[in-house]
Amino acid sequence: MDIDVKNILAHCDHTNLKPTATRADIRRLCDEALQYHTASVCVPASYVTDARRYLGGRMKVCTVIGFPNGYDTSAAKAFMAADAIKKGADEIDMVVNLGWVRDEKDTDVEAEIAMVKEACGDHVLKVIIECCLLTVDEKIRMCWAVTHAGADYIKTSTGFSTGGATFDDVRLLRQYCGPGVKIKAAGGISTLQDASEFLRFGADRLGTSRIVKLVQQMEAQGN
Amino acid sequence: MDIDVKNILAHCDHTNLKPTATRADIRRLCDEALQYHTASVCVPASYVTDARRYLGGRMKVCTVIGFPNGYDTSAAKAFMAADAIKKGADEIDMVVNLGWVRDEKDTDVEAEIAMVKEACGDHVLKVIIECCLLTVDEKIRMCWAVTHAGADYIKTSTGFSTGGATFDDVRLLRQYCGPGVKIKAAGGISTLQDASEFLRFGADRLGTSRIVKLVQQMEAQGN
Repeated sequence: MDIDVKNILAHCDHTNLKPTATRADIRRLCDEALQYHTASVCVPASYVTDARRYLGGRMKVCTVIGFPNGYDTSAAKAFMAADAIKKGADEIDMVVNLGWVRDEKDTDVEAEIAMVKEACGDHVLKVIIECCLLTVDEKIRMCWAVTHAGADYIKTSTGFSTGGATFDDVRLLRQYCGPGVKIKAAGGISTLQDASEFLRFGADRLGTSRIVKLVQQMEAQGN
Repeated sequence: MDIDVKNILAHCDHTNLKPTATRADIRRLCDEALQYHTASVCVPASYVTDARRYLGGRMKVCTVIGFPNGYDTSAAKAFMAADAIKKGADEIDMVVNLGWVRDEKDTDVEAEIAMVKEACGDHVLKVIIECCLLTVDEKIRMCWAVTHAGADYIKTSTGFSTGGATFDDVRLLRQYCGPGVKIKAAGGISTLQDASEFLRFGADRLGTSRIVKLVQQMEAQGN
């Protein structure tokens, strides 16, 4: 299998969302993102200001809101999106309200996404639906809600629940989302082969902390 | 061992913070809290309005912010506290910024807690320090930060990390917090014996979803 490592890296949101991530951890993440030309760094909201300043426009900054449980109020999510963008975030990854999904309150889910998208303005909004907690029917309904609400991406997983991205889910999301909605596969992507497959199945972004490490290891081994 | 079940229940924040909790799940939680006379229900922020309306002042409503990872911005946490209280929350459980704790930015942690406390006004603020991720030194420093910031409670755990409340932690927090700071033990409290011990070691509240279930089982067995 022929793997285009540069292409994979160019689609990675290089991510550190550990609760105990320090300023030094985030700066190391930024350095790695610059060195390996990833799509963005994805960092906790409290580090957006520092990452933005440190990167000085050389790399996009992504952050998360309503994360990872998705049950903050719509008002809180809209505030957090606006606050993060004001502090320098280029992209926002939000989690849908999963209790509402279970209760089939799709109109409310859609309205919330639209509200956050409005707070994001021209900035990219990715909507995490946490596939591992949903039925197939719920996933399909979320494809419609994300599409109708005008979000830029649908994202498979937070990486904090019972499972991460699967090939089946990426194929399903590609099938049921509108053509204007891109896909971010995230959570547990652990090999370059898998990363390549996710892209082939229609993902446009990969949320990962491991791909850069794998490439570093390959370099260390002289490959 | 003589266990005062009523006393244990009176100190429980009867909790459902599952990401997929439905409206019916939360109403069942409220019914159980009323029946067993717990201290409060602890629910996702997006259910505060409904729980408040459903309970009609017969039971306190507690919610969580910056939960469970603690790395939302201070502005976001203050907004979420004010928003939750406006929607009818009586008590707010917030998570400290654990990256800041690791980086020894205790002044920032304290300022953030004070900011959220101001947003809470006369309402109770509990501060989760996520003991399982901290060193003993970090826990002691957090006792001071929580005390100086004027919060009402220090809380051991979110229940979403690598470990829950321990007797050792409750003893440590009791030793190092000021006398005006109460203790909430949360996460993994799985027997009435343990619940009773946590109270004996100085906890004033127990964050739990299981204690009411245990009492229901005892009743079903005719005890």
